[in-house]
Amino acid sequence: MTSDPFFRPVSGFDLPRFAGVPSFMRLPHVTPEDARFSEVQIGLVGVPWDSGTTNRPGPRHGPRQLRDASTMIRAEHGVTGVRPFEMVNCADLGDVGPNPADISESMDRITAFYERLRVAGITPLTAGGDHLTSLPVLRALAGDAPLGMVHFDSHTDLFHSYFGGTMYTHGTPFRRAVEEGLLDPARVVQIGIRGTAYDREDRDFADSVGIRVIPVEEFHARGVADVMEEARQIVGSAPTYLSYDIDFVDPAFAPGTGTPEVGGPNSFQALQVVRELAGVDIVGADLVEVSPPFDASGATAYLGVSIMFEMLCIMAPHLARG
Amino acid sequence: MTSDPFFRPVSGFDLPRFAGVPSFMRLPHVTPEDARFSEVQIGLVGVPWDSGTTNRPGPRHGPRQLRDASTMIRAEHGVTGVRPFEMVNCADLGDVGPNPADISESMDRITAFYERLRVAGITPLTAGGDHLTSLPVLRALAGDAPLGMVHFDSHTDLFHSYFGGTMYTHGTPFRRAVEEGLLDPARVVQIGIRGTAYDREDRDFADSVGIRVIPVEEFHARGVADVMEEARQIVGSAPTYLSYDIDFVDPAFAPGTGTPEVGGPNSFQALQVVRELAGVDIVGADLVEVSPPFDASGATAYLGVSIMFEMLCIMAPHLARG
Amino acid sequence: MTSDPFFRPVSGFDLPRFAGVPSFMRLPHVTPEDARFSEVQIGLVGVPWDSGTTNRPGPRHGPRQLRDASTMIRAEHGVTGVRPFEMVNCADLGDVGPNPADISESMDRITAFYERLRVAGITPLTAGGDHLTSLPVLRALAGDAPLGMVHFDSHTDLFHSYFGGTMYTHGTPFRRAVEEGLLDPARVVQIGIRGTAYDREDRDFADSVGIRVIPVEEFHARGVADVMEEARQIVGSAPTYLSYDIDFVDPAFAPGTGTPEVGGPNSFQALQVVRELAGVDIVGADLVEVSPPFDASGATAYLGVSIMFEMLCIMAPHLARG
Amino acid sequence: MTSDPFFRPVSGFDLPRFAGVPSFMRLPHVTPEDARFSEVQIGLVGVPWDSGTTNRPGPRHGPRQLRDASTMIRAEHGVTGVRPFEMVNCADLGDVGPNPADISESMDRITAFYERLRVAGITPLTAGGDHLTSLPVLRALAGDAPLGMVHFDSHTDLFHSYFGGTMYTHGTPFRRAVEEGLLDPARVVQIGIRGTAYDREDRDFADSVGIRVIPVEEFHARGVADVMEEARQIVGSAPTYLSYDIDFVDPAFAPGTGTPEVGGPNSFQALQVVRELAGVDIVGADLVEVSPPFDASGATAYLGVSIMFEMLCIMAPHLARG
Amino acid sequence: MTSDPFFRPVSGFDLPRFAGVPSFMRLPHVTPEDARFSEVQIGLVGVPWDSGTTNRPGPRHGPRQLRDASTMIRAEHGVTGVRPFEMVNCADLGDVGPNPADISESMDRITAFYERLRVAGITPLTAGGDHLTSLPVLRALAGDAPLGMVHFDSHTDLFHSYFGGTMYTHGTPFRRAVEEGLLDPARVVQIGIRGTAYDREDRDFADSVGIRVIPVEEFHARGVADVMEEARQIVGSAPTYLSYDIDFVDPAFAPGTGTPEVGGPNSFQALQVVRELAGVDIVGADLVEVSPPFDASGATAYLGVSIMFEMLCIMAPHLARG
Amino acid sequence: MTSDPFFRPVSGFDLPRFAGVPSFMRLPHVTPEDARFSEVQIGLVGVPWDSGTTNRPGPRHGPRQLRDASTMIRAEHGVTGVRPFEMVNCADLGDVGPNPADISESMDRITAFYERLRVAGITPLTAGGDHLTSLPVLRALAGDAPLGMVHFDSHTDLFHSYFGGTMYTHGTPFRRAVEEGLLDPARVVQIGIRGTAYDREDRDFADSVGIRVIPVEEFHARGVADVMEEARQIVGSAPTYLSYDIDFVDPAFAPGTGTPEVGGPNSFQALQVVRELAGVDIVGADLVEVSPPFDASGATAYLGVSIMFEMLCIMAPHLARG
Repeated sequence: MTSDPFFRPVSGFDLPRFAGVPSFMRLPHVTPEDARFSEVQIGLVGVPWDSGTTNRPGPRHGPRQLRDASTMIRAEHGVTGVRPFEMVNCADLGDVGPNPADISESMDRITAFYERLRVAGITPLTAGGDHLTSLPVLRALAGDAPLGMVHFDSHTDLFHSYFGGTMYTHGTPFRRAVEEGLLDPARVVQIGIRGTAYDREDRDFADSVGIRVIPVEEFHARGVADVMEEARQIVGSAPTYLSYDIDFVDPAFAPGTGTPEVGGPNSFQALQVVRELAGVDIVGADLVEVSPPFDASGATAYLGVSIMFEMLCIMAPHLARG
Repeated sequence: MTSDPFFRPVSGFDLPRFAGVPSFMRLPHVTPEDARFSEVQIGLVGVPWDSGTTNRPGPRHGPRQLRDASTMIRAEHGVTGVRPFEMVNCADLGDVGPNPADISESMDRITAFYERLRVAGITPLTAGGDHLTSLPVLRALAGDAPLGMVHFDSHTDLFHSYFGGTMYTHGTPFRRAVEEGLLDPARVVQIGIRGTAYDREDRDFADSVGIRVIPVEEFHARGVADVMEEARQIVGSAPTYLSYDIDFVDPAFAPGTGTPEVGGPNSFQALQVVRELAGVDIVGADLVEVSPPFDASGATAYLGVSIMFEMLCIMAPHLARG
Repeated sequence: MTSDPFFRPVSGFDLPRFAGVPSFMRLPHVTPEDARFSEVQIGLVGVPWDSGTTNRPGPRHGPRQLRDASTMIRAEHGVTGVRPFEMVNCADLGDVGPNPADISESMDRITAFYERLRVAGITPLTAGGDHLTSLPVLRALAGDAPLGMVHFDSHTDLFHSYFGGTMYTHGTPFRRAVEEGLLDPARVVQIGIRGTAYDREDRDFADSVGIRVIPVEEFHARGVADVMEEARQIVGSAPTYLSYDIDFVDPAFAPGTGTPEVGGPNSFQALQVVRELAGVDIVGADLVEVSPPFDASGATAYLGVSIMFEMLCIMAPHLARG
Repeated sequence: MTSDPFFRPVSGFDLPRFAGVPSFMRLPHVTPEDARFSEVQIGLVGVPWDSGTTNRPGPRHGPRQLRDASTMIRAEHGVTGVRPFEMVNCADLGDVGPNPADISESMDRITAFYERLRVAGITPLTAGGDHLTSLPVLRALAGDAPLGMVHFDSHTDLFHSYFGGTMYTHGTPFRRAVEEGLLDPARVVQIGIRGTAYDREDRDFADSVGIRVIPVEEFHARGVADVMEEARQIVGSAPTYLSYDIDFVDPAFAPGTGTPEVGGPNSFQALQVVRELAGVDIVGADLVEVSPPFDASGATAYLGVSIMFEMLCIMAPHLARG
Repeated sequence: MTSDPFFRPVSGFDLPRFAGVPSFMRLPHVTPEDARFSEVQIGLVGVPWDSGTTNRPGPRHGPRQLRDASTMIRAEHGVTGVRPFEMVNCADLGDVGPNPADISESMDRITAFYERLRVAGITPLTAGGDHLTSLPVLRALAGDAPLGMVHFDSHTDLFHSYFGGTMYTHGTPFRRAVEEGLLDPARVVQIGIRGTAYDREDRDFADSVGIRVIPVEEFHARGVADVMEEARQIVGSAPTYLSYDIDFVDPAFAPGTGTPEVGGPNSFQALQVVRELAGVDIVGADLVEVSPPFDASGATAYLGVSIMFEMLCIMAPHLARG
Repeated sequence: MTSDPFFRPVSGFDLPRFAGVPSFMRLPHVTPEDARFSEVQIGLVGVPWDSGTTNRPGPRHGPRQLRDASTMIRAEHGVTGVRPFEMVNCADLGDVGPNPADISESMDRITAFYERLRVAGITPLTAGGDHLTSLPVLRALAGDAPLGMVHFDSHTDLFHSYFGGTMYTHGTPFRRAVEEGLLDPARVVQIGIRGTAYDREDRDFADSVGIRVIPVEEFHARGVADVMEEARQIVGSAPTYLSYDIDFVDPAFAPGTGTPEVGGPNSFQALQVVRELAGVDIVGADLVEVSPPFDASGATAYLGVSIMFEMLCIMAPHLARG
């Protein structure tokens, strides 16, 4: 199965990579109102939203900076040789517009948009946004049954609440997702957890429901291959969500994020961990917490889109195989 | 009347200005729980909050950066010779802690804090925060009767709502304040308004209730002295609030703000306009919309605290005269 | 005459200004292949090109940064009340792709693109690119007769050649344009010229052909209104090109450019000078030399698009009056 | 043994981490004049001083930036589970004010302050300042007998003099400390040494007195665990000083320092090496050479306070065991 | 009288301005040991020194950044047409090497270097360094009789001492110079003074010895021409030193300095004030307090060298007239 | 064999490293016109040129920033103890001036300059410039026979052409060099190749002519020692060129480059790979693609000159052994 040529990026040999209106990976910009919307197989979506951020804001600017950096991405994976844009129809579906002053309304808007994708059979690859973004997306995608999840992060995002009872922040999405039955905790693995802690409340919850947490010390000691083999076994062959917080990566490689934690993986490992998920049934993926105001050089966004391309290079072959 | 020596800043001759825990203007940090709280006459308060921001976030980081820059301020006004810290008891009252994920709760917390100041007879000088900050402050200060207001800004902040009905954003605080009877529109003047506009809805409202709007073109044509004489006449001798959005100043002088508009006053005028308010009965003042993530050099914060010191130098003599 | 609703920007009240794929001023992206291309009246075009730059490079990145900043522009001019997008059909026509390693081929590509616009009756508003950009544009626009030109800049760009005989650089475009008969020197005025000089070769040429040069000292002494009245008289009512090098403005307001010269106009004057051209028959305009690598904060780009909006607000009413 | 609740940091769940006057790790600010001074067990002290800097200045601004970053630190160590603030009484003791124009007087002020701590039984954790800071601190702490020292750095700081005879610079403190009998060279280990060298004068001195120098090549070859086991053996169970120059870490992870040397450890190792010192009798520790003017993003300061927290997490249990 | 061609800058038409080892204004680098040293008439000298800085350090890096920016300067003054390098022999004499850890020795080194220039009949144009630099320079230049001085600054630098008795800082040089008989206070004028003040001790001293202080308020009210006419009258036709602290200029135009004060002149005025000194007998000049660590964009250095070129353009004609 | 003392750097103990006109490594600046030119053995040359850049420009500013950073380099290699400046005569030969608007002329100028070096028996160590720089250098150096090459890079730079037939860009130099017989493909090894790819055209060419490509995955798996042993075997004992694109290194360590690719070696490996070439007959070397506009902190330049010093430390002993 090959893609329709309409859904292919402009080449940097035809138009220099610094030129042109910057859509994700120079793909066509196709909105739900567009005639060809229904032909899209993988939809790249921006969620410019950071109302769940409890510390330093900025991810609302993430999708635009990621689009800009994404024009540096070329057609072929350097190691695997995968050419995802020739395998399935990919498109930039634009941004879901949040209401920056209303968390609840924003979550509803996001869920509604992703339900539309689900109905259309489009697999979403999301550029956040803070990590609360994953919750309304999961509400749309987990319609039939709880999903598994591979989660790269330095934080578990499993807290009960913040500030004396606030239930929806970027530190709580997966607690809510488990409570709402969107995730099957036995099929969830969190990798790279580190940094100072308020307390053990999140880890106790993980233990109580059976979520597997792999701290960064274990990650460094065991290595990518071993850890990711375990991750693949945890999620198995059932539908799985992939959620990647850029603060998984060490801040020397990804400074542009709101809650960095030192001592993380390097950029080579940042890509490897995704590549190791080839074959997993990814029904949706996100890359969140890129915060341009803290990323003057754009390096974080460039790493972010490099990770998104790795995701595409495992999602496209899987979809193409059907 | 002179201040108690306890309430005086550390001198840069005793301790270099880059040294020490940075409180506002190197004043003592006095919390409401502190025994000497009741002796404070002017309280410098931080409101690290930007949940009302519809565009680029960041003012939640304003108070800390303003405190840092404020250690550069010395004891005496260079032109008027006023030494405010020797006239009245000034103190850093710390920050009002918002809930970054709950606008309504945050507004309640702010109002409660300022009501406590009002009860204690403390005149507040606030470092925001985005401009929505002014609304909960006004709710506390306008307890007895509507206040007049001198408002420096490039925007009127008089819109009805945003995003299809959201009533509380940094574009709406003074619409709400008029509706709630906190401001007397006939005693409100807005100076420096400029930039592109969505529409005339805000200006039409101003006209309908009698708020005087002085666009920047008129400001540049008439000059500081003439404009400020009119401003003094508008607010008269009754209690008046002073609200200063740093985006009043041209972004070359104040880049660190979320919604800059080019073509504004320079830094000399930025100070002059405050100095011209000497004698006005200022019952509270704020400096808002300083956004450190967009102010890499800290220049905006330094201008901001220079403006706050100008405010002190008109507020302290007025209070000292009693 | 009013515009077709298709050609109107997305409102920031509907979709926050930080959201969405960034086209110029949030207008629809319409390529020459598009069915509605022929309906466009004013086309915003990017020319991401800096091969003519003799000093610090970077303007090839200008159009993208200008698009990003342009999403801050709203629908209505704050002073004149003009709503250009409702008067004529405006669109983002994308970028002309240069060959960064071949000046001659790039100029041909640019001229070909603008000839296509001319045939289609579209008035171009260009975002450069370095100042050599103006030459291939003028080759397309001056097909029938030499044009007049109002030129804001700190340099005349009238040199014969650089580096011992190189004829096409950003310091020579208007020398070539006069030689090629694209400009009528008697109807050309250059405003804001300043800085140190290699020699007087450019000024001698200006004198010899009758180009009026207004140095910045004269500009500051006479003021905007007086200078611009003279400018209007020089170009008269015949077709006129408007070329605006961002280094016309003082580098405190526009640091992001390759050859800054201190002592220039401020941002208020930067807008005023365009506004004073209302009524002139502008057949094309450009804003050039915005260099993002030297504009970390994006302030230059924001001033740049504010100037482009001023241009639109004189071009659209003129076209609408037809 | 548990700490008094007075000496505990404000939680980020109660007050967001960007709010409040920034003391070290949000601890109470307790000066020597304060009634509770004598209850402090571990005192965090700033020494904002860089007069010994021979190359790029800036560490005088270190303590303030470190305080700012330290508000990101939470209560519990993520790996060991240590909660230091609950084990011993910790406080921010403010800054020692240097005289930036008089090295000798500044050293005397510093020594006097630390002697006061020693008398009060307070173990100091210092935020420098350049590395000359360690000398006046050692003069106070080594009152009874020479100390051992674990020293992380890319330079030995063992030179005899600079600029033809200047004895007190940040390249000479430990030469002086050995000469003055403050350090027992047989119990000193220097780890991470690298970079180009003027000559071998410092290394020859180390060899002559028996200081163990572990160059970074050996560090990378042997690994953290092996090197640190040797370090623990060298210092043994006697009183030991811990001195950590942030330029020990590779400049990709810690750019904000005056004399960076490429090829250093990463941020994970930067933390590990401290953790491996659990059980050593640390009688004082410092983190020096953080230079904010060269650390635009604040990343170096955040790594710096993460290291200081690691120090706390080995010092507090040791003290608590008493 | 014309200069020897050896002493002329490389043209940007021969070698692009970004190329080549950066000497001041692309002049030949001539050291005192060089055979042609004695032919130099105006010597550009760097003093990379900031040991007198009481606040934010950095001017030790000034000369290098100024050299870099100076390669943008061309051969001819844009307004007056002066071509200084063709009038007198100009050269870059390199830097005076300070001892960054010894103020007294550094002052002696500087004085010794400038005495050598005085003996050789070379008029120095100095790039600092902090403002203490002027004192050792004046010690060399005022050998025969006290000098007059035109001093642009936001501070008087006339304080008695800092930090309880420190006599040599960048806040005291002109107090010392008056005390030592290097300056004739009746022929000293200080222009642009502003900002908050510790107290009036410096102003009282100025009054007591007859130094004329023109605050920035008076400067803005009277305008450049009027103020500078008074300045010329004050210094008269006798030998005069010109000292220019870059913080005279508003920080929007010159952010890279250690003690900025808002409300200053703009960049056009920054150049004009020097130009108005044409005809004064300048026996030496300096441009000080440019601090690269606070000038990320290099804009301050570029303004600084533009001011130095203005100085050259009044010094060279005066010398050439002999 | 030892060097002439004339050819030795100024010591930082004599003149602080921030002082003085910045030549490469503080060496004497010797031009071809200089009497001592013929005594130079290793010449450091800048090629400030980026006309071959297809993406983000800036390397034209590389040599100046590298000179600035190089003043941090001291006399002795920290690991090997080599003191290159005492072994052979080293000098800064200045920059080859390109014509930024004419690629062909610039290449001719570069080749002519390097032929002059070859005639004089000077081994060049070049600071680029973009990677097209290597081609005109090779044209001069490979006069007698094709050279071997060790090439560190993330890209092969072996493409046939760009933009539909443009033969000379920074993506094509080694394709041309092979075609022109300047390189012996059997003695060429490319190390570190990675990133997304347009297609396999470059890799197919490498395979067809026998160039050995070692992708970064293989590099990470095998380690430095093993890979470099193979590299030494490939080039053998015959004359070899060393070309080092700074984008070989991971962008966290070297952000200042135009076409970064994540997942590269760290800074320790960046130095090691050069050190492993001791004994190879290096007849010329370059360090290219350092782009200051994308390197705000200067960290890339500092790593770059550290690499250049490593090169010197293998070249000088080899030459000295002669």
